[in-house]
Amino acid sequence: MTRERVAVLLSGRGSNLVALAEACARGEVPAEIVLVVSNRPGAPGLDRARERGIPIAAIPGKGVPKEEHERLVAEAIEEAQARWVCLAGYMRLLSPTFVAHFPQRIVNIHPALLPSFPGLDAQRQAWAYGVKVSGCTVHLVDSGCDSGPVVLQRTVPVLDDDTPETLAARILEQEHIAYPAALRMLLTRTWRLEGRRVIFD
Amino acid sequence: MTRERVAVLLSGRGSNLVALAEACARGEVPAEIVLVVSNRPGAPGLDRARERGIPIAAIPGKGVPKEEHERLVAEAIEEAQARWVCLAGYMRLLSPTFVAHFPQRIVNIHPALLPSFPGLDAQRQAWAYGVKVSGCTVHLVDSGCDSGPVVLQRTVPVLDDDTPETLAARILEQEHIAYPAALRMLLTRTWRLEGRRVIFD
Repeated sequence: MTRERVAVLLSGRGSNLVALAEACARGEVPAEIVLVVSNRPGAPGLDRARERGIPIAAIPGKGVPKEEHERLVAEAIEEAQARWVCLAGYMRLLSPTFVAHFPQRIVNIHPALLPSFPGLDAQRQAWAYGVKVSGCTVHLVDSGCDSGPVVLQRTVPVLDDDTPETLAARILEQEHIAYPAALRMLLTRTWRLEGRRVIFD
Repeated sequence: MTRERVAVLLSGRGSNLVALAEACARGEVPAEIVLVVSNRPGAPGLDRARERGIPIAAIPGKGVPKEEHERLVAEAIEEAQARWVCLAGYMRLLSPTFVAHFPQRIVNIHPALLPSFPGLDAQRQAWAYGVKVSGCTVHLVDSGCDSGPVVLQRTVPVLDDDTPETLAARILEQEHIAYPAALRMLLTRTWRLEGRRVIFD
């Protein structure tokens, strides 16, 4: 089985990058992470990439027009010959132009059961709403905010003595299982969109 | 343990009425259903009540001003000396006046993981969105649409070959477990609201 070339975009600590890289190294996901891009030069996730010998590109987004920034990111991805793009805590919305560049090959993970609690601070949103079940969602990316077709969801209980932080930690454990599992499904199985439903054969 | 007097409001087949009544009969919920109210005189749920010897009140809502209809429903509940109100497929929104009459003692069940997919045809909404997990929510009722504090949620997988109907059937099985369980929790345990979180001691 050929290994797909994947770029990971991040802005923060990169724990989902680590989960993906380890699953690839174990042979569970037939992919190779060939590039990690951060819009924040100081993101700890870049260190996680360096430790694993993964090429990095720090492409600052601050003070740069969105279109220009996205052009640089897309160029880096294409130079690395990555075919898939995995967002792992990437804190910028992608434009329709960027999304169209990688049709149905951009994936994101969100720490809630979408369509509940899109956007920032999803775990705290869920905690404050008082849901008794939350979780995480791996989805294909469109140009909306956490609005693309759902590939996989995993649930966690919300406990009465939870804080937003303990809930976030419980969800993060499931993210690290869900993201590699979803990428494996997308790369190894035949699938199609019916409306916005992701159907695996 | 004293048995709480409960009124059930419904508009349709009454499968959740049956689940609640059977759980009460088995002693799993320390409650007695002392009245079933339907806004639709032909609702099959009224037959389920009759079969069990539960008093019924058919109070047609069609063509009657909402305020007048709700006054009649509240009077019937009070005559039956019911302290709790369980909505079981009751297809009318309750006014703030009605809700204030039974503070934090009106409960509803909704066939989705709220706050996703409130309102009508929740199972079809979830199916069309393409979530991979759905379920049901038991919640305290406020005067919004499916917006009150969550008591309990149970999940079901959404399968690739599901139709809205097969998904609805899978969720209904969990409703019949969730509703008695949630009512039992509310009646037998100490609980409080923190913000909109329902916290059990």
